[in-house]
Amino acid sequence: MDLKTLIIILATIFVAVLSFVFAYWLYRWVKKQPSENKKIAHIGTLIKKGANAFLKKEYLSLLKFAGVAAVLIFVFLPKPVWIEGEKILNHVVMTVSFIAGTVFSALAGKIGIMVATIANQKTAEAAQKGISKSFLSGFRGGAVMGMAVVGSSLFGVAIVTLVIGKLTGDFSALIGFSFGASGWALFAKAGGGIFTKTADISADLVGKVELGIPEDDPRNPAVIADNVGDNVGDVAGMGADLFDSNVASIAAALVMAAFLGDKVNSSAYIEMVFVYVALGLLSSMLGVMFSRMGKDENPTRALNIGTYLTTGLFAVLTGVATFLLEFEWRIWGAAIVGLLVGVIIGLTTDYFTNDAHKPVQLVSKASKSGPAFTILSGVSYGFLSVLPAMVGIAISALAAFMLTKSLGTSTGLEVEFGMFGVSMAAVGMLSIVGMIVSNDAYGPIVDNARGLAEMGGLGEEVIEATDKLDSAGNTVKAVTKGFSIGAAGLTVIALLFAFVIEVNSAAGETVIKNFDIMDPVVFFGMIVGAAVPAVFSALLMLGVDKNAQRMVEEIHRQFDEIPGLKEGKEGVEPEYDKCITIATTGALRELVPAGLFAIILTVIVGFIGGVKAIGGFLAGNIVSGLLISLFMSNSGGLWDNAKKFIEAGNCGGKGSEAHRAGVVGDTVGDPFKDTAGPSINTQITVVSLVATLLAEIFLLISLF
Amino acid sequence: MDLKTLIIILATIFVAVLSFVFAYWLYRWVKKQPSENKKIAHIGTLIKKGANAFLKKEYLSLLKFAGVAAVLIFVFLPKPVWIEGEKILNHVVMTVSFIAGTVFSALAGKIGIMVATIANQKTAEAAQKGISKSFLSGFRGGAVMGMAVVGSSLFGVAIVTLVIGKLTGDFSALIGFSFGASGWALFAKAGGGIFTKTADISADLVGKVELGIPEDDPRNPAVIADNVGDNVGDVAGMGADLFDSNVASIAAALVMAAFLGDKVNSSAYIEMVFVYVALGLLSSMLGVMFSRMGKDENPTRALNIGTYLTTGLFAVLTGVATFLLEFEWRIWGAAIVGLLVGVIIGLTTDYFTNDAHKPVQLVSKASKSGPAFTILSGVSYGFLSVLPAMVGIAISALAAFMLTKSLGTSTGLEVEFGMFGVSMAAVGMLSIVGMIVSNDAYGPIVDNARGLAEMGGLGEEVIEATDKLDSAGNTVKAVTKGFSIGAAGLTVIALLFAFVIEVNSAAGETVIKNFDIMDPVVFFGMIVGAAVPAVFSALLMLGVDKNAQRMVEEIHRQFDEIPGLKEGKEGVEPEYDKCITIATTGALRELVPAGLFAIILTVIVGFIGGVKAIGGFLAGNIVSGLLISLFMSNSGGLWDNAKKFIEAGNCGGKGSEAHRAGVVGDTVGDPFKDTAGPSINTQITVVSLVATLLAEIFLLISLF
Repeated sequence: MDLKTLIIILATIFVAVLSFVFAYWLYRWVKKQPSENKKIAHIGTLIKKGANAFLKKEYLSLLKFAGVAAVLIFVFLPKPVWIEGEKILNHVVMTVSFIAGTVFSALAGKIGIMVATIANQKTAEAAQKGISKSFLSGFRGGAVMGMAVVGSSLFGVAIVTLVIGKLTGDFSALIGFSFGASGWALFAKAGGGIFTKTADISADLVGKVELGIPEDDPRNPAVIADNVGDNVGDVAGMGADLFDSNVASIAAALVMAAFLGDKVNSSAYIEMVFVYVALGLLSSMLGVMFSRMGKDENPTRALNIGTYLTTGLFAVLTGVATFLLEFEWRIWGAAIVGLLVGVIIGLTTDYFTNDAHKPVQLVSKASKSGPAFTILSGVSYGFLSVLPAMVGIAISALAAFMLTKSLGTSTGLEVEFGMFGVSMAAVGMLSIVGMIVSNDAYGPIVDNARGLAEMGGLGEEVIEATDKLDSAGNTVKAVTKGFSIGAAGLTVIALLFAFVIEVNSAAGETVIKNFDIMDPVVFFGMIVGAAVPAVFSALLMLGVDKNAQRMVEEIHRQFDEIPGLKEGKEGVEPEYDKCITIATTGALRELVPAGLFAIILTVIVGFIGGVKAIGGFLAGNIVSGLLISLFMSNSGGLWDNAKKFIEAGNCGGKGSEAHRAGVVGDTVGDPFKDTAGPSINTQITVVSLVATLLAEIFLLISLF
Repeated sequence: MDLKTLIIILATIFVAVLSFVFAYWLYRWVKKQPSENKKIAHIGTLIKKGANAFLKKEYLSLLKFAGVAAVLIFVFLPKPVWIEGEKILNHVVMTVSFIAGTVFSALAGKIGIMVATIANQKTAEAAQKGISKSFLSGFRGGAVMGMAVVGSSLFGVAIVTLVIGKLTGDFSALIGFSFGASGWALFAKAGGGIFTKTADISADLVGKVELGIPEDDPRNPAVIADNVGDNVGDVAGMGADLFDSNVASIAAALVMAAFLGDKVNSSAYIEMVFVYVALGLLSSMLGVMFSRMGKDENPTRALNIGTYLTTGLFAVLTGVATFLLEFEWRIWGAAIVGLLVGVIIGLTTDYFTNDAHKPVQLVSKASKSGPAFTILSGVSYGFLSVLPAMVGIAISALAAFMLTKSLGTSTGLEVEFGMFGVSMAAVGMLSIVGMIVSNDAYGPIVDNARGLAEMGGLGEEVIEATDKLDSAGNTVKAVTKGFSIGAAGLTVIALLFAFVIEVNSAAGETVIKNFDIMDPVVFFGMIVGAAVPAVFSALLMLGVDKNAQRMVEEIHRQFDEIPGLKEGKEGVEPEYDKCITIATTGALRELVPAGLFAIILTVIVGFIGGVKAIGGFLAGNIVSGLLISLFMSNSGGLWDNAKKFIEAGNCGGKGSEAHRAGVVGDTVGDPFKDTAGPSINTQITVVSLVATLLAEIFLLISLF
């Protein structure tokens, strides 16, 4: 590794450390905010305890899987240990990278929970002094998570790269690191997603629908579990998820950069990746600093300004760096294509899920004819919404490829450079991930704050302010989700190529020239792969379904058996912890089948059809995964906002037929958008990484 | 063409004519059944009139499209007319084939309506004399359609093949014939699907849900439109649909057979195709003859026995023919693989949609917690249900390919023979299509009969008997749908290959060796293609949604303005025709965008990315089309039967909370399973045919 590269990697580590310092500063700032209300402190503690208890149980149970996986990895990767000439050092580096990936992923979740469970109280109390103050508490709480997630992904990737450069030169260890992150995220996201929606649905069903008591009413035994769920699902799960997407996109780009660097004897490509991601993090820090509410008191605007500022900064800073360091402009172009398409996907997502536009309004109107029409029209718009996003992903991949392929004309590496361009488009799309995570974590924090304001009896005005903040969180969430799904699409294309590089370099010759759709083995894999996201999300939703039925029973039991609870007698408190236990136990039980199904099916297809079938499998998986996750995320967001639109007094307002129908739509949409939809991202990434890691084994053993 | 081939084709035509005679005999038999009830005759006439009026309007409006298409085809196909050396005769044959395809497709629908609107009355009245008699009327009415559809597809294909053999030798005219059939079917199916669900949903919504009057109550202004819908959607639309699937599978097999025949100088492959489809039709005739109810009075059993008998007969007869005519056993094996996998797909579909199994029961149980849970659990099981079917299709394609590829080892045509095997698996899967159509048409006939019995006041016992027949129709329908979706999957793989053959033979050299998933142009096509079925079904569902809202308004108006209607005063009749007009106008308006969208997007992608992008586009389209159509058909069937399961007294029975939720599920499921789901088949086929036909033009003009 030459000095310039070393300096750039060290500079990246410096930026990562800077983000940790910034995160710590934000954390201190949030913690310093005043909190005096005893009741809120009491409930806040309950939430914090519940969240930490779940996290501990979840992590302990995931630890077993990670342990088994680490042993398997040590024995089999990068090559089975009994294969002659294999150096044990490679195994050690691979295994340690994997473990590091899981640890960072787990940490991202833990840090998020830590700050979120403080920020929610601060946000609630700050709302008494006005919405601007309250916004800042919520947003900066979220930003702690944002900085921690992106900082640690850069930190981890940079360290692993240094170790590889020093010790083995085998870049597949980065895939191992990424697999550690994604594998952990898969289960964390699934478990958290099941927990949060179990509690949310059950609380609503008995509270709002059956008994007609308000949301977040402290009499409801599931209300704390619901708030815990916001933290473990939307904060911790989401953090692990975006940590893994980010790592995967950087890892894919680095593997390709290393490959190209080897071929043309240049480390410029590796340098570019590090410079770009470091500048992305820097832009996000600045974006976070300047995100505050103006005089118009519009939180959506404040969030969006931060996002666009980050986007613009990234484009400019990378342009300057490309000029100064004499990088290829075409590759810069690919990254910018990714960024722009990300924005476009975000905007179309906004069109389909924001109540300022037709779809939400028409679904609300259709709700007047009953819930069946809420569902039918929501499903229809959800299906329609996949088109712009998918076309956007398709075009950005094509454009990035076409832009960069000419770099390889002189060396016969056109395809390889083109694919590097695609991976850089993914890096570009995820460059603002620091900002995205901040926005995403802001959502559940203000949602929690709303609950605390209600339960702490802070009055109508405060609740209204937090409601406004919450609604902004919903809108922005839909937009950022578009980014992460789009980036996952591009990343996985890049991973597919990383897979080919892996296979060919493993075999020492060009075993795979292509994955021909007309080859029945590829086609076989493609069709089976396409079924995976459907089954995966079905298993998660059934998990929520089963679990919610158990919790509803428990809520009924408490209302029946605890005297004075229904009437709200002074001093009578429901047994919150019982509901939390049900959600915890259920989530841990239900998350396993879905995750294992995806991984095991990949292995089976690999052993049946070999690497060719796996190529098809990944393609089918990406295609249907994108389709289903976009559909579920968008229709879920649409239903949520349609309900809110009706509650704001449209189409009959609260208590009307349309409202009842809207609640049904929202309940259906909840696991769509918060459990199944966003988990599919991770599922796709995990499957790609498993395939890439096992490539050599499939080469050795397969039926066809 | 040698004498043996000629004799075999003529024999096929003879079998087709035989099936017409048989159909005519069945038609006379149905017509001869007694009908005396004046009221039923009156209502029956209203239904017949409404159906014919819709069909006339629909056909007139489709005629314009067909006319434009015919002119375009004449000018551009097989090659643009200005390309040097192009013979005008080829253009004439192509255009005439296309027109013949549309005419046969239209006829299939027309004949179906003709007999169904008689058979429904006969079935209703026969039910007074017992369920066995009634079953026979319904089934034989359906069988008229079955025989007509399959007979005319064989007849058409055979004639076109003879013409090609005599005049041009250009087998792409078969693709033209198939495109005529599919293009017509696409619009007929979509239009009929929108009509039938508009009426069904509106009638239920106002009748059952708002006013609490029974299904098929003559006071309901939409009741006749509902019954008309059964005929134009489920009979005519379905007939056109299966006509087109059948033709497409035979055409794909023949194109490949002709290609192979050219290469190895043998007409055995063309002969095989004809012998197999002719024997399939013969088996179906025998199956129909022996389908009658035993002493156990179980209509499901009667229908299934017919299906299994046909399946067994086909296997044995083709085995004997393969032995006598010395065909390749491996190709026979491929056809049998298709047939067996069809049965397996049918059985798994049955598992997910039959109330004897867990999924329907669990969805019914979940309904006790409200409609959101009906939807969530139904969507989950719908997603799960795609796995066995997709794995089945994947395995059958792989197995058929592997079985037959060795036939080409000596000539270097392994892939070509393998693909011929895949197309023969599709032929095998559709071999029993005569029986499938008979079963499928039986459904709406007995559904109508139930309505007539109710409106004609034939009493509880008769209604119960027709209910039993109706329920059997639902169960069997789910199974046969599995067959047709599976066959569409295999057919389109075969068409993809036909597309490659077309392109290469057009270019005079091997332009396309493969469609590499890693090629960004292919990938671009694949992602865009995957979005098409989602958008297509969304447009159809929105069509139903809009249209139903209009009709609900009209029903309300009639109940408000016609005195004595709500009370059921003697002699007061609603204005049935107004509802029929709304359904008709709406359906014709809404069917166009969906159909054109699919076709135009194919053309755009072709002009952007050329044949490579189209290859990806078709693959993406197949994969996501299979996924979405299986999901929609199965979840729709599941909800329908869950509602019936609850109505039979489970989970609280009629009038319970679970029942109300079940009705919501059923309403959502209706357009899923009867409008969008089954239309996707046709959409996939049409897109493949358009691509194949335009292959040469995309070769000439494209951006990349």
